[in-house]
Amino acid sequence: MIDLRSDTVTKPTEEMRRAMYEAEVGDDVYSEDPSINALEEAAAEILGKENALFVTSGTQGNQVAILTHSVSGSEVIMEADSHIFMYEAAAASAFAGIQPRPLKGIRGSIQPEDLLQAIRSEDIHHPETSLVCLENTHNRAGGAVISAEDMAAIYKICRTNKIPVHLDGARLFNAAAASNLSVKTLSSHCDTVQICLSKGLGAPAGSILAGSASFIHKAKKWRKRLGGGLRQGGVLAAPGMIALKKMAHRLHDDHIKAAKLAQSLAEQPALFVENRVDTNIVLVNIGQTGFSTSRFLQLLKEEGVLAVAFGPQTIRFTTHYEISIKDIEQAIEKISKIVSAKVILH
Amino acid sequence: MIDLRSDTVTKPTEEMRRAMYEAEVGDDVYSEDPSINALEEAAAEILGKENALFVTSGTQGNQVAILTHSVSGSEVIMEADSHIFMYEAAAASAFAGIQPRPLKGIRGSIQPEDLLQAIRSEDIHHPETSLVCLENTHNRAGGAVISAEDMAAIYKICRTNKIPVHLDGARLFNAAAASNLSVKTLSSHCDTVQICLSKGLGAPAGSILAGSASFIHKAKKWRKRLGGGLRQGGVLAAPGMIALKKMAHRLHDDHIKAAKLAQSLAEQPALFVENRVDTNIVLVNIGQTGFSTSRFLQLLKEEGVLAVAFGPQTIRFTTHYEISIKDIEQAIEKISKIVSAKVILH
Amino acid sequence: MIDLRSDTVTKPTEEMRRAMYEAEVGDDVYSEDPSINALEEAAAEILGKENALFVTSGTQGNQVAILTHSVSGSEVIMEADSHIFMYEAAAASAFAGIQPRPLKGIRGSIQPEDLLQAIRSEDIHHPETSLVCLENTHNRAGGAVISAEDMAAIYKICRTNKIPVHLDGARLFNAAAASNLSVKTLSSHCDTVQICLSKGLGAPAGSILAGSASFIHKAKKWRKRLGGGLRQGGVLAAPGMIALKKMAHRLHDDHIKAAKLAQSLAEQPALFVENRVDTNIVLVNIGQTGFSTSRFLQLLKEEGVLAVAFGPQTIRFTTHYEISIKDIEQAIEKISKIVSAKVILH
Amino acid sequence: MIDLRSDTVTKPTEEMRRAMYEAEVGDDVYSEDPSINALEEAAAEILGKENALFVTSGTQGNQVAILTHSVSGSEVIMEADSHIFMYEAAAASAFAGIQPRPLKGIRGSIQPEDLLQAIRSEDIHHPETSLVCLENTHNRAGGAVISAEDMAAIYKICRTNKIPVHLDGARLFNAAAASNLSVKTLSSHCDTVQICLSKGLGAPAGSILAGSASFIHKAKKWRKRLGGGLRQGGVLAAPGMIALKKMAHRLHDDHIKAAKLAQSLAEQPALFVENRVDTNIVLVNIGQTGFSTSRFLQLLKEEGVLAVAFGPQTIRFTTHYEISIKDIEQAIEKISKIVSAKVILH
Repeated sequence: MIDLRSDTVTKPTEEMRRAMYEAEVGDDVYSEDPSINALEEAAAEILGKENALFVTSGTQGNQVAILTHSVSGSEVIMEADSHIFMYEAAAASAFAGIQPRPLKGIRGSIQPEDLLQAIRSEDIHHPETSLVCLENTHNRAGGAVISAEDMAAIYKICRTNKIPVHLDGARLFNAAAASNLSVKTLSSHCDTVQICLSKGLGAPAGSILAGSASFIHKAKKWRKRLGGGLRQGGVLAAPGMIALKKMAHRLHDDHIKAAKLAQSLAEQPALFVENRVDTNIVLVNIGQTGFSTSRFLQLLKEEGVLAVAFGPQTIRFTTHYEISIKDIEQAIEKISKIVSAKVILH
Repeated sequence: MIDLRSDTVTKPTEEMRRAMYEAEVGDDVYSEDPSINALEEAAAEILGKENALFVTSGTQGNQVAILTHSVSGSEVIMEADSHIFMYEAAAASAFAGIQPRPLKGIRGSIQPEDLLQAIRSEDIHHPETSLVCLENTHNRAGGAVISAEDMAAIYKICRTNKIPVHLDGARLFNAAAASNLSVKTLSSHCDTVQICLSKGLGAPAGSILAGSASFIHKAKKWRKRLGGGLRQGGVLAAPGMIALKKMAHRLHDDHIKAAKLAQSLAEQPALFVENRVDTNIVLVNIGQTGFSTSRFLQLLKEEGVLAVAFGPQTIRFTTHYEISIKDIEQAIEKISKIVSAKVILH
Repeated sequence: MIDLRSDTVTKPTEEMRRAMYEAEVGDDVYSEDPSINALEEAAAEILGKENALFVTSGTQGNQVAILTHSVSGSEVIMEADSHIFMYEAAAASAFAGIQPRPLKGIRGSIQPEDLLQAIRSEDIHHPETSLVCLENTHNRAGGAVISAEDMAAIYKICRTNKIPVHLDGARLFNAAAASNLSVKTLSSHCDTVQICLSKGLGAPAGSILAGSASFIHKAKKWRKRLGGGLRQGGVLAAPGMIALKKMAHRLHDDHIKAAKLAQSLAEQPALFVENRVDTNIVLVNIGQTGFSTSRFLQLLKEEGVLAVAFGPQTIRFTTHYEISIKDIEQAIEKISKIVSAKVILH
Repeated sequence: MIDLRSDTVTKPTEEMRRAMYEAEVGDDVYSEDPSINALEEAAAEILGKENALFVTSGTQGNQVAILTHSVSGSEVIMEADSHIFMYEAAAASAFAGIQPRPLKGIRGSIQPEDLLQAIRSEDIHHPETSLVCLENTHNRAGGAVISAEDMAAIYKICRTNKIPVHLDGARLFNAAAASNLSVKTLSSHCDTVQICLSKGLGAPAGSILAGSASFIHKAKKWRKRLGGGLRQGGVLAAPGMIALKKMAHRLHDDHIKAAKLAQSLAEQPALFVENRVDTNIVLVNIGQTGFSTSRFLQLLKEEGVLAVAFGPQTIRFTTHYEISIKDIEQAIEKISKIVSAKVILH
């Protein structure tokens, strides 16, 4: 199977498995797990923040951030297609009691003028604007990179208005690779940042939330409430360290594979690539093929290729380190075959 | 002062004051207040629902409705400029733990195709869609009437998807008057409805929430939690009954006054009436006058006219039963004077 | 009917009705209702706090206080039989997300040593203690007065630990009357206080929440979220002012009536008065009569006396200004008759 | 160091480390992780429930259970010293909006008559009782075993009143071992149960929540909201399977070690063992030694023994598989030395 459903499907590497086997561990509730401590320290350094916290998933990192930044009854501005708004099952309203204020961005990028209009003035009828969330790369915008300039513009407005900024950087290393910038440069335009170790970086599980020391201190108790405090968490932190240190450099390869896939599919008259392929995600509109997405996905599966639906006529393909150039070539071939078959039937 | 800020500023009529004085009362927590009981029965009848509940404000009626319909972690679809989303200080997320899903409507009217796209499919990442909220007339759309046909289209989709519909009918009697329809006809296209007794209908305070008997039974406990359970509430229900029975027929006059105001202001080259004036609200864009809204409102006040800001360049005027045709004529004159003065200065 | 169910059943006096009729009103959302403003000012003065806020019920006053003092995930210490814990339908956990920490008091009075033990130390597993709530008089302890000394002892501990104290003073005027102290003396031992205008003081509805200016400013928005912001609220504030100013002096009479009732019932061998009757509440244990409480209450009703169940074998009688000494004598007679009949049947 | 602070400090065994190294994994969000699937199946079988869910901690298992069983504004009955009430940082009120109703048990066991009194009747002032939580063994009661008979009595009352029962069985295998009963026998007296793989069973992290198929289906979305959905979670499930299958039989040894420790310490005149040592926990009162607990713990640490404070004069010692009989003997010796030194100083 050529599994292009997500970069989350990646399995730990041999080196990561060995790291788990050998991990030095302790009880992290007593802050005594050396592997966790080392990972948090390294991540804080890489992200340019005072402190960092290991959490079990990207969703948990985002939720801890919102719970720590915002009080109940306040409003959190976020992009209308962001993961937090679309794919976290309304957790932020359920747990933090915040009202999301979704703004439609351009390629995932919130526009400064929209932000300025959305920030609430002091009025008895208004919730206070307590947080702005960004997402980089932006998943539903097709892995789009939010440029450092766009981030800086948003951050400047927020600082002026004394509103903190949280960055959902589940795929921030992809954004950094595509921009030829360090991760730290990008994360300098936010107060707190969450990055996933388990997507393109390949760790079996886990994310990092980074911010100021006082923020992370408060965040730790919210992680505890969410049940994210592990005991010998070092067994996850050890492969996480390899993900952090040794996997980022190869994300560029994933982007090349995605570009190749996109280019070939764009040449098919019945297919339409919806996104500018900045990173490892390709959104393909199959509306012209005459297939439904579910039927198309099924045919793909029969041919040994996996992908996911991403809208009524859209299919998402995601590249990652377990996918070779050869896999991409095969996938292109299989897709062409399905599309052509349909055309012939017509 | 000619107070055009809102129809909420209306003071109780002599008849309402007398009703308060004479009100038969009892302890409503024991359901023994005859005036409350009579009002709830009359309101249920007029709104075509099994039962009704007296609440102290429109916000409380909407919040009780959401708390009763929805569970924490679910999503509630509403228009992007609706009162619930814009002006209830994020209460629904704070108290009910729901995520609002704002959809930009046309003149306040949610479009069926947008609704269909927004209803969530079953997926581990998705909140369940638990409620759709409508607003008629729609305040921020300038008192726009949502037509019975538009309401019916939304309600049909919701019934098919087993999603209840709540109607914020704070100004539903205005919508009915403007449509030449009974209130009951409009409220037949929703499961629950909230109407305000204290806006155009003139009661000092209070709203009604109506729905099925089982819904109102559950709603009563949420009202209690919100602290909306009054003791001798009959003193508010008695004038409320007059509002309900005797004030609706004159809303048409308010609409004529608003139309007159709009027509005259539209003739001023420097002013632009932003809304189609369906009911008693006029939104005037003063961008061309060169005044800021705050300065314009101040000058108006000095001339004896009150209005409110409703956007960076927009001023809202609202007519009600304490405003005569003569007041409207005077207001037009004052506004013209201010606008002309500016033009001369230029 | 001699209605001894509660002091909440009292109907407005002629003077209160006239005050409603004549009330000067305005839109309280714009802080323009002169009757509301006057009441809030007078109440702040009487309670010795910077500012006060009119709310529609005691429950609403308590909930606004908790929402303003406490953040989600913190712990609020309260007496185990307090109104907030027993009779507000878990609103504080539902809305403020706080965990109540109930402590069993002596006659409603939290013991300092229990409080000291219950205050949480800093620990990742512990919620922060964000508030202590007192209740005076204490309803379920039979209208027991918490002495100024007891209040002072609790307040001292809380100040040392930087924990604010809220006083549910729904019947604080009864406590003051019974202690021969001013209300202000009692409310000096707390940061915020809620008093009811609609119980012994006889107003048709409404309570007051008082505290510092900054607290009341924040509280106002929480009241708005709860839907407690009225428009022409002056129609309730005007009779509330009479309650506040003219009704307190007569609470002593209610206490005399309750004492008389208690003394007579205590002489009946089959009855047992459970509480020391400090104020206007008498708790009578009817276990020895052989009747169930529901049967006893039904027989009482047939004789023209109303009371309420207050436990498996306990009946509560509450005196108020509509009950005369003659009513008390009659009630005693009726109760004796029922008890004797049973004894004869045996 | 002889680490008697908790059985949570246990490090994974060599076999567990190997299992991690070799674990078959997949993306658990797609339910494709074979190790997770196998563990959930095995756990459901052992616990006698239809289905099971892997969660990252005991706190998370308890919170998911409460979120799934209970709606906001309801009341959850639990023992006053239970982990959920004392040590989960008020998460259940913060996230599920429930009010805990703590009942003081006997040796951790809620008394049936107290439960019957605490279940709420239908009344506008009352929250609905939505859940009863038990804890077995009971940590703060010193690892006390709740007998199958006691559990059955509670469960019977709850079934009669249609209230579900959740069992916090973080140390249920210890209870089973001490009672010579199967885990399944104990968990037959509840609807849902949480067990920890990371305490006496030695896994690095993780717990299991088991219940009916429909319950687990709903629970999965709440786990997602809490951020507990892992990707390649199999790396934790694989050692978890060893904990579940191969570690339970040896818990009896831990109990013997704790008994030995307790017996020796009880013989010291200045020490008092507070609990009946049913399982692996020993609570020692050091009040008579003249030391503060913090000083005592520090001296112990200097002697190479770790324990934790468990009250103003109480120290908790917990045995586990990394502690040998020899360690216990040494610990006894060290403790005696400290106690004697003090006595001599006197």
